[in-house]
Parts: sequence; structure tokens; C-alpha cells
Amino acid sequence: MKKNLQITIPELPTGKLTESHFNLVEDVIPSPAKGQVLLKNIILSIDAANRAWMQGTTYRKAIEPGDVMHGYSICQVEEPNGSHFKKGDFVFAEIGWQQYGAVNTHEITSCPDHKPLSHLLSVLGIAGKTAHHGLIQVGKVKEGETLLVSGAAGSVGNLVGQFGKLKGAKVIGIAGGKEKCDWLVDEVGFDACLDYKAGKLGKAIAQTCSGGIDVYFDNVGGNILQSALFNMNQHGRIVCCGAVSLYDGQPLAGPMGIPGLLVVKRLRMEGFIVFDFPDKDAEAENEIKTWIDRGQIKIYEDIIHGLSEAPKALVGLLRGENRGKRMIQVTKI
Amino acid sequence: MKKNLQITIPELPTGKLTESHFNLVEDVIPSPAKGQVLLKNIILSIDAANRAWMQGTTYRKAIEPGDVMHGYSICQVEEPNGSHFKKGDFVFAEIGWQQYGAVNTHEITSCPDHKPLSHLLSVLGIAGKTAHHGLIQVGKVKEGETLLVSGAAGSVGNLVGQFGKLKGAKVIGIAGGKEKCDWLVDEVGFDACLDYKAGKLGKAIAQTCSGGIDVYFDNVGGNILQSALFNMNQHGRIVCCGAVSLYDGQPLAGPMGIPGLLVVKRLRMEGFIVFDFPDKDAEAENEIKTWIDRGQIKIYEDIIHGLSEAPKALVGLLRGENRGKRMIQVTKI
Repeated sequence: MKKNLQITIPELPTGKLTESHFNLVEDVIPSPAKGQVLLKNIILSIDAANRAWMQGTTYRKAIEPGDVMHGYSICQVEEPNGSHFKKGDFVFAEIGWQQYGAVNTHEITSCPDHKPLSHLLSVLGIAGKTAHHGLIQVGKVKEGETLLVSGAAGSVGNLVGQFGKLKGAKVIGIAGGKEKCDWLVDEVGFDACLDYKAGKLGKAIAQTCSGGIDVYFDNVGGNILQSALFNMNQHGRIVCCGAVSLYDGQPLAGPMGIPGLLVVKRLRMEGFIVFDFPDKDAEAENEIKTWIDRGQIKIYEDIIHGLSEAPKALVGLLRGENRGKRMIQVTKI
Repeated sequence: MKKNLQITIPELPTGKLTESHFNLVEDVIPSPAKGQVLLKNIILSIDAANRAWMQGTTYRKAIEPGDVMHGYSICQVEEPNGSHFKKGDFVFAEIGWQQYGAVNTHEITSCPDHKPLSHLLSVLGIAGKTAHHGLIQVGKVKEGETLLVSGAAGSVGNLVGQFGKLKGAKVIGIAGGKEKCDWLVDEVGFDACLDYKAGKLGKAIAQTCSGGIDVYFDNVGGNILQSALFNMNQHGRIVCCGAVSLYDGQPLAGPMGIPGLLVVKRLRMEGFIVFDFPDKDAEAENEIKTWIDRGQIKIYEDIIHGLSEAPKALVGLLRGENRGKRMIQVTKI
């Protein structure tokens, strides 16, 4: 009899997340209740936000100890159970870290028809739309401006940089380690990239962004945010997309200069999530598709095979080991 | 021979500002150079921002040790010196803390015709426009929303509260001491006021703003900002107008929850100064005048007589002793 492989989180981490926080268990494949369909997990998205969900209620419900680890996936309908879906349909669902899940039909969305499917989680999915909405709707980047992006090698960061270049901005990345920085400049096309592990980041930002920063796209928070803050131009915008440096430990004090520098420099600092701009999704998708069709975007995906690799993949992502969008191919198709 | 009384600041404070940081000196009345007019100081504005100018370059040049203390006044033209001004004209100028000053003609603006003159520094001047622009242009307050205002008894704060009520918001103030809080509720018309000196401010905010805060108008920064931040509603706006709790000492770390809470709650935090909205000045003035004409605004002014009182007036303002707009009547007219 087929089993359902699951990864649970028996206790929530208070400090750094490690692989030992997770348990690999087997359960029976559930039967969908009325109003549910049975889904098979195909590709699971691995995101820094997964760690934030362990810290309490955010824009979604918190992960509770003992839960099957929460996660967002592309799935295939296994048992439509009388719904309007057909067996084999590809759908987006929060099925979690398991091979099969019974999910409420109204919480499922159909995938658009696109090959490869993985693009629907990366450049044409949450990562791409997050980068686009953050840069355009929140950051309101303009041609000729200087754009600084932290977490630049990550799923969102590398796209923010590429989209910024296409919008005519000067793009400076921040990433950890010389290799990643070289890759961002030589391969991805950033104008420059600063290695925060090399120290003296504030000075490096001041030198590289000698005309100051107009838009800072922040994926990390903490000291890097502080260094950026002190180099912002008047009327600059700080796009608060994530705070990965703060997810994996105890809460810290915020950056110095808040709110003083916000007043003096008339800065706007604004948080958002990708679901805040439903009326702009089509616009973003169309622009990204046009760029892809013209060969103007390089798509970086970091696909790891097998559900059992998910804990290691998330822990590694929080340590900054990925380049581009990390995902788990749960089922080969 | 008539002398020019001046107040200088021989050394900049590193900690709390005291009256002993200032010197009262006498100088000759200057002769205006080409392109300058000689002005007589009539009413000097005393503002928390005066202290911020001692901390380095802000949106204006920093105060240097030995300077005549910087300040903004309503003046009267004493010697037009060939300019288009006439002797006796009332003008706005950054003449500083002195009785007479020679100021560049292009840095002077004519006062509108209004009696009493003091209103041009309070409700119809910088204080009123700061309150209006901050609340409407930055805070975008809407009817039925909950508005929290710190520094509520101050020149800007009391007007933010009154304007907020007129816009249909529920208005909660934060001020120091029971007396000021009672005054804000009983006299000024706030719905409630919280005494930050009573402790447990976060809890008090949570209880009083039980539906959460939609707009927080921040005049103080520091711990009060942090308490507000944790009680913001999703898509709330934090209007960063000033940081008086931080002006008078060493820089502190910023509030916890930045940037994490900004992302999770999709908050916008935005700094501004009154000069950022020149195209909205007329609109603000017209609305404020309409409210005054209808008797819907109470105007609180705290006018102290004599230039030599200015150091004590500023030090006292930083300790929160004023109610409404504090000014120095330098010359009786």
C-alpha cells in the first residue's frame, strides 16, 4: 500500500533552525472530505518566509508544534472528489511538506498552462511577482536611479536586480561571499555587488553608491538595513520585502536612525507581500513574459530532488547557500 | 546707541541641552550688505527641531559652535536697502536668536495679511501646515479610522488631533502627565489621552485602541514609537514628523520589529517636513481657515516675552512643558 511521506516539526526553534527540528514520518494517504480534493505534491517552494511562519502569526497563520511543516506547492489533482477539477490538473496549494494532502477546494488555484512548471514558482510565480510589485509598486524605481538590493543572489533578489536594470536603474547588489558577488556581476548582470561578509559594509556602500541610494530593496533587515539607511538619498524609498537576517534567532533592536533619518531625509519605508497587488498581477506577468520572450531575463532555479531533502534545503537557504529560486521536486512528472 | 541683543551657542551639547549652553551677548546692529535687508525680529518660533539642528546637517545646515542660535521668525523690515520691500513690511526669515539681522533678500518671504501675527507661526503657519500635510498627504487618514498622536499637547500634536476629529477619525493622544492628558480630552477634544509617564504604555495603547491603530502620527520616536508599532493595523501608516525623545542625547537603537513588522503588517512609515508639499499649502490653508471661521478649531499659543527667555523656553519645550505653539515675542508691536 502507498504511503504518504510527511515532514513534521515537533517543536518550534527558538534559535537557529537545524535539520534536527524536523521529523520524517509516514502516514496513510488521506481521503478527501466533502469540499476537499486529494492532491499530489509535485514541486514544493522553499522560502525564507517558511522560517518567519515559525515566529507566530504573520500575514498567515503560524506554524504550531507538531504540524506537518507548512509550504506552498504546485500539485496535481489525484482525486477530484466531485469538484470542478479533473484528475491530473495542475494547481497551486498550501499542501505542506508531504507527498499527498487533502485540501479545501476553495483554497486551490489552477496553474496557468506553462512549461516548465517550475517557472510558475520562480520568475512567473511568487518570486517574480514579489520582485516586480516591490520594485514598481512600492519602490517606484525610475530610470537613472540607484537601486541597492540585499539578498541579491536569492530568488527575489536576483530578479529585482535584473528588472531594475531593464527599468534603467544602476543596480548594486549585496550578497555573502566573493563568489556569489562575482556571479551576480559577471553572470546575472548587476553593475556591482558588495560582500557583506567582508566587513565595513557602510563604507563599501558609500563608495559604490557615491551618488546615494534612491531605492533600497531589503530582503534581510538588521545591520545591512542600517548600513543602507545611512546612505539613502532624500526622498528615497526602502522596500521592506523580508528580514531573513532576523528570522533565525531572537528579535533584535531595530536600526539606528529610525525615525530620525526618515524625517531628515524624507524617506518612505514600506512593507508589502506579493498578495497586496492583485490588480497589478497581470501587468507584472505581461511585462516579465515580454522580457523572457526577448531573452532579457536569465532564470535561475535551484531544484533539489526528493521531499526528504526539504529540511536541509531550508536550513541551507537561511544560511544563504542558494542562487536563485530554491524548490523541491517532490514527484517526478 | 541701540545695541543688538544676541544669543549664541559657544559649544554644542552632547547630552541634554541646558540654559548654560547659551550666551547672551550684545553686538552692534549690522549694516545690510548689497542684496540684503536689515530686519527687526518680532516673534521667534521655538521648536523641537531647533535641538535637532545641533546634531549635524539635517534638511538644513547644521548649527556650528559659536553661531548666533538659528531660528525662524516673523520680522519687520527695518532698512529695505533698495529692495522691493518697504520699511515696516512683515516677513518670514531665518534671522536667528537676535533682535536685528541682515538677511539675504531672496531668503525672505512676505507674510500674508493676518491678525494676530502669531497665528502665522501657529495654526496658519508651520505648525498648522505640518499637522495638515502630515495627516492628509502622508497619513491619508480616513473617516472612521483610529489615529494615535504622540507629543499631543505640542504645537503640531494638538492640531493633528483636532484636524483628525474634523476628518472623522477616533483620536487618541499620548502626552506626559495626567494634567496634560486631562486638558487634551476635556479642553482640546481628544477622545482619549494616554500618559506615557504612567508606564505600561503598550498595554494602555492596546486597551484604548482596541481595534488597532490605522494612523500613528509620531512626534517623538523611541520607546513610544515602538509601543505604537506593535499595535498598528494591517496597512497602517506611521507619519514620521519628529523624534523629540531622541534629539536631546545620544543616538539610540531603533524600535524592535523593524523591518519585520513593516512586512508582516504591510505598514508604511514615512518621514516628511512641511516644505515637501508646496502645491498643497493653499489647500491646507483654506481648509484650516474654514475650520477657524466656523469656530471648529481651538488655537493654543504659548507666547513668552523677551529674547533672553529663549534658552529657557527651548529647554522647557524639550522637557514637554508647553501646551500649543511656543514662541518668543522679541519686540512688542
